[in-house]
Amino acid sequence: MKNRPKILVTNDDGITSKGIFSLIQVAKEFGDVIVVAPDKPQSATGHSITIHHPLRLNKYINFDGVEAYSCSGTPVDCVKLAIYEILNGKPDLLLSGINHGENTSTNVLYSGTMSAAVEGAMENIPSIGFSLANFSVDAEFSGAQWAARQIISKSMEKNIPENTCLNVNVPDLPMDSLKGFRICRQAHAFWADRFDKRLDQFGKTYYWLTGEFSNIDTHEDTDLTAMKNGFVSIVPTHFDMTAYQVLDKLKNWNL
Amino acid sequence: MKNRPKILVTNDDGITSKGIFSLIQVAKEFGDVIVVAPDKPQSATGHSITIHHPLRLNKYINFDGVEAYSCSGTPVDCVKLAIYEILNGKPDLLLSGINHGENTSTNVLYSGTMSAAVEGAMENIPSIGFSLANFSVDAEFSGAQWAARQIISKSMEKNIPENTCLNVNVPDLPMDSLKGFRICRQAHAFWADRFDKRLDQFGKTYYWLTGEFSNIDTHEDTDLTAMKNGFVSIVPTHFDMTAYQVLDKLKNWNL
Repeated sequence: MKNRPKILVTNDDGITSKGIFSLIQVAKEFGDVIVVAPDKPQSATGHSITIHHPLRLNKYINFDGVEAYSCSGTPVDCVKLAIYEILNGKPDLLLSGINHGENTSTNVLYSGTMSAAVEGAMENIPSIGFSLANFSVDAEFSGAQWAARQIISKSMEKNIPENTCLNVNVPDLPMDSLKGFRICRQAHAFWADRFDKRLDQFGKTYYWLTGEFSNIDTHEDTDLTAMKNGFVSIVPTHFDMTAYQVLDKLKNWNL
Repeated sequence: MKNRPKILVTNDDGITSKGIFSLIQVAKEFGDVIVVAPDKPQSATGHSITIHHPLRLNKYINFDGVEAYSCSGTPVDCVKLAIYEILNGKPDLLLSGINHGENTSTNVLYSGTMSAAVEGAMENIPSIGFSLANFSVDAEFSGAQWAARQIISKSMEKNIPENTCLNVNVPDLPMDSLKGFRICRQAHAFWADRFDKRLDQFGKTYYWLTGEFSNIDTHEDTDLTAMKNGFVSIVPTHFDMTAYQVLDKLKNWNL
């Protein structure tokens, strides 16, 4: 009898979030689950790793028999610790999320959830990051769970291409209102940032990041368009950031 | 008379490092410099941004008349604060570094220095990240300064392509031993990680990331090969992480 796949689950909202609990429920249907996730919110930590101070791991006992550890570091730290200290090897599948809030477009660079999946791709582990377009702590994840089930099943059947992870975003809709799935490219969109600038109790200035997301890329083939139209978007994502299309142009600079 | 270009300088080693001082010296030859850089080391913070707590900016007075601010956040926070709070607009050029330690290959994802340049590219600011292959605090930057001077000059003449930044790495060699410049792609290499696992004074375990860099990609056209052969490597870098080459394969999954 074939062993059940070993599935590593992590996220960036922290181990106590509803999103990771929802993902564990689905993951258990497909294999033996091990959880290594941040002990506190780590949203927007991107591909940050902890090198200036040590990390802690603690057993986490609230997942009803599932082996789980909370980690003092970032999502990418969690993946590294899972592989090199807990599993002593690679899992068969890495799942990250389900994120509270979407990670479409350039958010893939800021997202700890997606950076954990990208780290998995760097280790050549089949890896998928899931995000739901709802930031609230008690968001309804049943639609995202349904989508995750379909995508995990298909990924295990077809195999995710080498050194690639999937960036999956699910619209905040009831399950039966989801239109299906779209394979997309990352939209060219950005944050129109601004800062709340205020005075603290000592009269000193502080700044707090805020802003609005602007989509300047309304093409049919993007994750943002798919989401807007009620589809689950799937962007195959890699870690080669070379701008190949301009290599020749730069070679003509004759530096 | 044409105004001098406005040049934003940042880094990830912190505002007191020798690397940023070395870069400011070069930048002043090309325009009016403004510095916004982390108030402490922020290496390996990747594209992390600070959203869970506010940020502080303080005037920094030790750059001999150059307007400078230290920031409590990450390199990407520094870029955002510079654009949206200090300059109230985009600089003509963004320079990040000179990093103490190289940022070739997949290190582009972990590097705060390069993430600041990528953030610049997202804002469509001509942006260049510089790194020297020497981690020491008193590294000799004259070779890297020479390289930076050539590349900045050429970039201002030829224009960096839209939404692209340059990832420049300089071998740790005396200036007259540098072989020249190579336009490269990002090598497919990775960290073979491990953790130092030790007990603290209370008998509790802690983990500290360490490891060695492994190059499994020895092709001629990579940044690692250029560096190994004594050339300054220049990788045009963008923020579209879509794995275009597998889009059709995934579409055939018929999800």
